[in-house]
Amino acid sequence: MLIIGEKINSSIKSVATAIETKDEDFVQKLAIEQVTAGADMLDVNAGIFVDREVELLPWLVKKVQEVADVPLCIDSPNPEALKAALPLHRGKALVNSISLEAGRYNSIVPVVKEFGASVVALCMDEHGIPHNADGRVEIACRLAEKLRSDGVSYDDIYFDVLVQPISVDITFGIAALETIRGIRKCLPGTHTTCGLSNVSFGLPERKLLNSAFAATLVAYGMDTFIIDPLDPRIMAMVMATRALSGQDEFCEDYLKAFRSGKLKW
Amino acid sequence: MLIIGEKINSSIKSVATAIETKDEDFVQKLAIEQVTAGADMLDVNAGIFVDREVELLPWLVKKVQEVADVPLCIDSPNPEALKAALPLHRGKALVNSISLEAGRYNSIVPVVKEFGASVVALCMDEHGIPHNADGRVEIACRLAEKLRSDGVSYDDIYFDVLVQPISVDITFGIAALETIRGIRKCLPGTHTTCGLSNVSFGLPERKLLNSAFAATLVAYGMDTFIIDPLDPRIMAMVMATRALSGQDEFCEDYLKAFRSGKLKW
Repeated sequence: MLIIGEKINSSIKSVATAIETKDEDFVQKLAIEQVTAGADMLDVNAGIFVDREVELLPWLVKKVQEVADVPLCIDSPNPEALKAALPLHRGKALVNSISLEAGRYNSIVPVVKEFGASVVALCMDEHGIPHNADGRVEIACRLAEKLRSDGVSYDDIYFDVLVQPISVDITFGIAALETIRGIRKCLPGTHTTCGLSNVSFGLPERKLLNSAFAATLVAYGMDTFIIDPLDPRIMAMVMATRALSGQDEFCEDYLKAFRSGKLKW
Repeated sequence: MLIIGEKINSSIKSVATAIETKDEDFVQKLAIEQVTAGADMLDVNAGIFVDREVELLPWLVKKVQEVADVPLCIDSPNPEALKAALPLHRGKALVNSISLEAGRYNSIVPVVKEFGASVVALCMDEHGIPHNADGRVEIACRLAEKLRSDGVSYDDIYFDVLVQPISVDITFGIAALETIRGIRKCLPGTHTTCGLSNVSFGLPERKLLNSAFAATLVAYGMDTFIIDPLDPRIMAMVMATRALSGQDEFCEDYLKAFRSGKLKW
């Protein structure tokens, strides 16, 4: 299981200010805190600065990796920003994201290949996001085939199963869960992920819903979590469900987390 | 989904004392509290009083139903105690439990039939509990066939998928979950349940594990929960996961629980 810390994201106001003013102390503190809390990888995003992303994304990569010895998930659909950021990255980066939309696929995959990165692949195409799991799994199969023929191995593909709010349609939670099951069955060796907090949009007690959803995602076999590792309840829920679903031999990681005081909830 | 309140059980010391001394105030308070917290049914158990169960179990049924307008899960393997208790019960009782063990099956099923009760059927036989899900589903199929030929309809069968501690064997959690999936697939129309807190025996932060397991059980389709409805976190987790897994149209019950202050966790 891979935990990707989501906090260094320009859609968060305080982070946007820090990126805009190149406040490296702020950004580096956020990096260290997330790794200390258990993140295996950190997301970096400067997406709201459309005109300055080519300058700011490489700065983020450099500053974060100065203090955090983990690989980064470089979160941009902009090939120029990626081309500027990836040469500064140490280790194997994860590029977020492509889809089966031709423009997006064709501009990003060559960059992914050039720098030997992994890639997040959204289960959608030109027609948008299929309503049910079967449609998303079918897109995942076509994406996997295309990526393999373009030289990207299964182990480097992270399918985003695309979580939408259950307040809009009550079937959106189960659609994401069944997409995970379908991809695990049809495309073994690839990975699955999602932005899980979308699920609770528009409802009260969002952290309760997000924590419960995290547990069900673990049980359905999702292996890559883009979450806030500073939220102790969501981390505790993920650790607990890993053990409950047979993914933590002898409950070793669960007991280690307990002993180091990380199972507060 | 059916929530069965588990607290009127003689294995809890304070409850045993109340049953032994026929402290009806204590027992009735526990009944009212559980129904107020959301229990649809209440478990009653006087099992530790082996020599007095025939006297105490009917007393429990009478006293609980005097104040709680819900059916009861009558928890005893003793046909004499059941024969004494069931005539006093109003509504459709659930008898807990039988298994494929011949002695147990043959002594209890006629009583279940006589009083038109439902029955909890443990997924085990003379050889004990199968280690994996396939073995348990196979027993469930044989039990369903036998019960049907003895005149018990599918809707009256509640399979206990048998939860054992993950501290003993890390595969015990997934065995229970996959048994639920198997029974839903092979025996539609029947119900599934379990004593979920066994899963965390021997580990720290048991309530965390129990809550996370409750979420995964809901997502795998278990429909009958024998739990402590006075534990707000486990109830919140069950309500949240019902909505997340598409079982709560328009999130109606979730929002109702929120508005009445029941989503505290």
